Order: sequence, then C-alpha cells, then structure tokens
Amino acid sequence: MSGSFGLEGVIVTTSKISSIIDGVLSYRGYNIDDLFFKSSFEEVIYLLFYGLLPSKEDFEKFKKLLYKEFFLLDGFLDFLKRLPLKTSFMSGLRTIFSYLGNCDSEEDDINFLSLQEKIAGIYAKIVSSVTSYFRIRKGLEVLKPKEDLNFTANFLTMLGLAYDDVAVFILDKIFILHADHELNASTFAARVTASTLTDVYSSLVSALATLKGTIHGGANEQVMNLLEEIKTVDRVEEVISLKLKNKEKIAGFGHRVYKDGNDPRVKHLKNMVYELAKHKNDFFYYDMLLAIEKEVYRKKGLKPNIDFYTAAIYSYLGIPKCLFTPFFAVSRAVGWLAHILEQYSNNRLIRPRAEYIGPTNLTYLPFTQR
Amino acid sequence: MSGSFGLEGVIVTTSKISSIIDGVLSYRGYNIDDLFFKSSFEEVIYLLFYGLLPSKEDFEKFKKLLYKEFFLLDGFLDFLKRLPLKTSFMSGLRTIFSYLGNCDSEEDDINFLSLQEKIAGIYAKIVSSVTSYFRIRKGLEVLKPKEDLNFTANFLTMLGLAYDDVAVFILDKIFILHADHELNASTFAARVTASTLTDVYSSLVSALATLKGTIHGGANEQVMNLLEEIKTVDRVEEVISLKLKNKEKIAGFGHRVYKDGNDPRVKHLKNMVYELAKHKNDFFYYDMLLAIEKEVYRKKGLKPNIDFYTAAIYSYLGIPKCLFTPFFAVSRAVGWLAHILEQYSNNRLIRPRAEYIGPTNLTYLPFTQR
Repeated sequence: MSGSFGLEGVIVTTSKISSIIDGVLSYRGYNIDDLFFKSSFEEVIYLLFYGLLPSKEDFEKFKKLLYKEFFLLDGFLDFLKRLPLKTSFMSGLRTIFSYLGNCDSEEDDINFLSLQEKIAGIYAKIVSSVTSYFRIRKGLEVLKPKEDLNFTANFLTMLGLAYDDVAVFILDKIFILHADHELNASTFAARVTASTLTDVYSSLVSALATLKGTIHGGANEQVMNLLEEIKTVDRVEEVISLKLKNKEKIAGFGHRVYKDGNDPRVKHLKNMVYELAKHKNDFFYYDMLLAIEKEVYRKKGLKPNIDFYTAAIYSYLGIPKCLFTPFFAVSRAVGWLAHILEQYSNNRLIRPRAEYIGPTNLTYLPFTQR
Repeated sequence: MSGSFGLEGVIVTTSKISSIIDGVLSYRGYNIDDLFFKSSFEEVIYLLFYGLLPSKEDFEKFKKLLYKEFFLLDGFLDFLKRLPLKTSFMSGLRTIFSYLGNCDSEEDDINFLSLQEKIAGIYAKIVSSVTSYFRIRKGLEVLKPKEDLNFTANFLTMLGLAYDDVAVFILDKIFILHADHELNASTFAARVTASTLTDVYSSLVSALATLKGTIHGGANEQVMNLLEEIKTVDRVEEVISLKLKNKEKIAGFGHRVYKDGNDPRVKHLKNMVYELAKHKNDFFYYDMLLAIEKEVYRKKGLKPNIDFYTAAIYSYLGIPKCLFTPFFAVSRAVGWLAHILEQYSNNRLIRPRAEYIGPTNLTYLPFTQR
C-alpha cells in the first residue's frame, strides 16, 4: 500500500470537469482567465453542468428554467422559520439542504439522464434557500426574483441587498472564479458520499458540511475576523508577528495545490479589490491587505489564496460577514453538482485505508483484572 | 502523482482506532472475536471513544450518562413531527442529525478536551433521535428509556419493539461487529469533512449521508429486497442467474478490503442466523441464504459480506426493513465519533487530485460562432 497523509498529490479519479495543469485552471477545457473576461456566471453554470457552452436558444431556455425554479413553496419557507435563530448560517443551511431532499419525492432516483434534467432545478432551489434563509433570519419577508434580471442580480434582489451595476459585475466574476476547483475538500466529500450510490442531496449536504470548516469555505470569514482584529494598517506587523509567534495560522494564506503560491484566480481578485477601492474612493481594505500580504510573505514566504481578497471584495460591496461562506456555497454548488453526476456516471466506491499505529494483540480482561 | 481509482489500498492517515491486519479485525488492539464473545456493545462504545476498557466505576458512570442523555427536549420532538412522512427514514435522519447540531449552542467548539466530555452525550442523542423518529413516523408516542436496562435493551424499549433476552443478546453482538471498520466510506467521509475543521455534527451528517448509499449501509435493505424477490429456495438459481446475466450486482457480496472474501465478522453472523433459525424453529431465511451463498460463489467466486447475514438476523428478530440501515447507523456512529475526534487531534486537510481527461485549450467563442 502507498499513500500520502491528507492524500496530497494522490489521484482518486479521472474527471472531465476542471483541471489545474502547470498552474492554469480550466473549466471543461476553457481557461479560467478567458471565462473571467468573456463569460458570465450563468453561462459557466451551464458549461459546468452540461460540458459545453450553450447556443443562444439553449441559454435562454436555461435562464428561464433557473428563474422558474427559484420559487420555493410556502411549506418550505415555514420550515426555515422553525430553525433555531442562534445556530450559525452554515449550520442552518446544512439542515435546509437536507430538507430539500426530504421534499423531493424522487430523491432516490440517481439515474443519470433524470438527473441531467433535474440538476438546474436543484441548483436554483439551493440558491433561493440561501436567500430566503437570510431574509427569514433577519425577520424580513422573503423576496421574489425578477424574470428580466441575470442570475447574480436576481441573487442580490432575493437577498434584498442594495446593489448597483458594479456590484453585479464584480460578484458575477467572483462567482465564476469560485464555481469549481477540481477535488477541493468539499467537492471530494461530495464524491466520496456519492460513491456509495446515495442520493444527490446527501452528497450536497456532505459538501456543504465540509465547506463550513474554517480551513476551507469558512476561511473568508476568518480573513474578515483578522481584518477586524488588526483594525488599522499600522498594527499589521505587530498582530501578524504575535500570531506567527503563537503558531496560529493566518487565514487566507497558502494552498494545497499551488505550492508556489501563484493561484491563477488571485490576480483577478486583487485587481478587483483595487478597482473597487478606487470606485468607492476608500483604500482601507486594499491597504490592509497589501500590508498583510507583504508581512506574511516576508515572515513565512506564503502568498495569499482566493479567500484573502474575496473577503475584502465582499466587504466593499457591503455584504454581511455571515453571508461570506454561503456565497462560496452558492458558487461552488455548481461544481459539486457537476462532480456528483460525474461520480454516478462512472462510479467506483471511494474507500481508502489507514495505517494502524495503536497497540496490538491486547488481551480482554474482566473488570477485576483491569 | 500516484493513486488508485477509488483509493483502493491507498493510505490516507494513521489511526489508533481499528485495524485490519492479515484478515484480523481489531478495535483499539482487541481482536473482534474476543470482544464478540466477552464484551458488550456498551463497553465497546467506551473502548472506541476513550481508547481503553473502563474500570467498573467508570463504566457505571458512563452507562448513567448515556441513559441521562437519551432524553430529548419536547421542542426537538416537535421538529421530528414536521418532516414529510413520505421521505425515506435515512433521508429524514440526515436532516435530524443536522438539526441536533443546530440545537447545540456549542456546535462550533471543536476543542479536543471539550469534545471528549461531550462525545457520549452526542452519541446518546443520535440513538434516541433514531428511536423517536421511528415512533413518530408510525404515529405513535415517543417512549422513554429505563435506567436499569443495558444499551441494547433500552434501544429496543425506546423503539417499542417486542423483544426477549435472545433478541437483546444477538442485537448487542451485531452492534459490536458493526461499531467500526477502519476507513469504510462513511467513516472516511466523516474524516474528509472533519479535516476542514468543521464541527462534529457536520462530520456526522456527512457520514450518515454516505452510509445511506445502496453499496454501503443501504446494502442490508437491498439484501432483504433480494430475499423478497426470490421468495422461495427453489427460485434462487433462476433469479440469481438472471441477475448476473443482466450484470446486476448481488447485494451482500464482495468487499473492498477482504479480497479473499473472508470477512472475520461473517462467521459470527452466520452462526447467529443458524442459532436463531433453530431457536425460532424456522429455517426459511437460513436456507435461502445458504442457497444464495452457494449459487453466487459457484458463478462469481464471491463470498457474502456483513450485510448479507445481518439482514436475515434482523428479519428473524422482527425488525422492520426501514430500520435496517438506521440500525447500522446507530452502531457505526460509535466509530464515526471516534474517528472525527481522532481527525481533529492530528489534523491534515484531506484534499486529493483528479486526473483530467477532458478536452484542453478550448477557445471561448461568442454565441454567433458556436
């Protein structure tokens, strides 16, 4: 048996979804840089789900379908209202994603063709669960989507957040960059779960539960906590030094796959932070991030990852911190669904081994002899 | 990069929980055969959670704690009543396990010492969620545990199933055999999820969602479906032949780890099926199983796995089919919790790679040129 702690560099499966080759990230064969500049998130959803870019006609149909499927039944919304308010947003979402499965009378049908038909509808329901849950947690009424808006504008509309064209433009780009990333931990969890031929919702819940962790999807919120802790640029060196001295990890730095630190998504995010700072005429977050980046690189040689700049962009856009990880979930759920269907289409149970390092050959003794 | 499709034979992590070495399964260094004959499930829970067999005094304290923690709050039971009745038992449980986390105000505390304190309480709540949900799905009142009963008798008491000493004895043994099995898919899913430093409930939900699959925990129910389909011993050859001709998998056969088919748990289960058949003076299931075993071995060279005989035992004990996989969950949740805590205690993010086999270097073209 061979292996690697944490499966670093170990290949689990083949995939036709996304690739990271020589530091270039592609979705379905299209360089992420190209998609970032030329495509839209809505189109990237189609690309990841169905493996190709849509014709104009298919794309229009697809957008209509998403819009239609955003609507949740009243009974479903009642359920959201019953979740304890004190639970975290991601923890509540975990229950809600599972409940979506409870409400689907065809939950256990994992036939590939039926799922290809259903996948966009499941995705739309995930998205409107997030927006509705946000509204309900705030004690506000649930908001309807509008048929003439694109995905991202509708997402912000359903959340009831104030936005302008710049916000929609930027958020759409961020969602493109977050939509898939090969076998990141949450996507891998979705595939492990799917590999027992369980249902789609089970696999989605597994992914969401995994994304919640502070060294995965939860990291963008951790970055924000760090910025709040540091408060002002002149304290960066002091706080970072202290954290490193205490062997704390600095949220938003390092990546399992990009060992040289050159994550191809980061340059776009960094540019967007700069553009937003200019647009808002407020360089607070930008300056803080540059200072932290410089300090961590000087002391540890680590470069920032996707979570680092994403947190600042969300802050510039006025998005509340509790939504940072759910936003990640909304974008990454596209990849999750594509990977779950791919797992079913060419399944092999994912079942590795552990190296046992405990005691061996112990003798069972009765109480009196222990 | 190296690897193996489905991670067959690939080592992911070290572990001190259970080992499968030269066909011998041990928990914490104790041979499963020894535990089967000499220990009780309640003691095995303690052993897997804390790494050693308890003193008499600690064991008494532990049993009292489990008993106390079986009780669920009224508000919690109201939640169970709101789940759609048409959803499958395992699908409902997935939502309930998640909701357990929503109700724990310290859900996000993954400090190892706090969790060592909490683990038995979380486990007891899992167990009484299963029994309460069973009662509620049937439209029956929820039943309380009794302080003087052992774990397994209390479990049956809370389910409200008729039982005798033989049933408690046998079920206790079955639970011992199911309590852990190294990195089976559901336990592995729990560890992948925990490896992002998400919370315990997220990791448990991930495990349960994975167990639900028909080629993992769902297999015992599939075995029962097979028996129901075959109906009589004289039809075994015909039905099995047809299934194999149609390239269908026969539920309850084959195992990723025991390639020679000699799963050390199976001999005990087979003996118990025989003893139960004698005790009940009803050899129907025993004869059916022997005939299927013979036929599948003759045609495919495969030997039965743990699910094959477990299904028959549950049937002899009058346990309804909808509880087969939840019973597996109740026993395996012991292993899940032990593995989740072990993952936290020596964490490394579990993040493997995929081999990309799709198209490369595609050029993004506008609609008019597609």
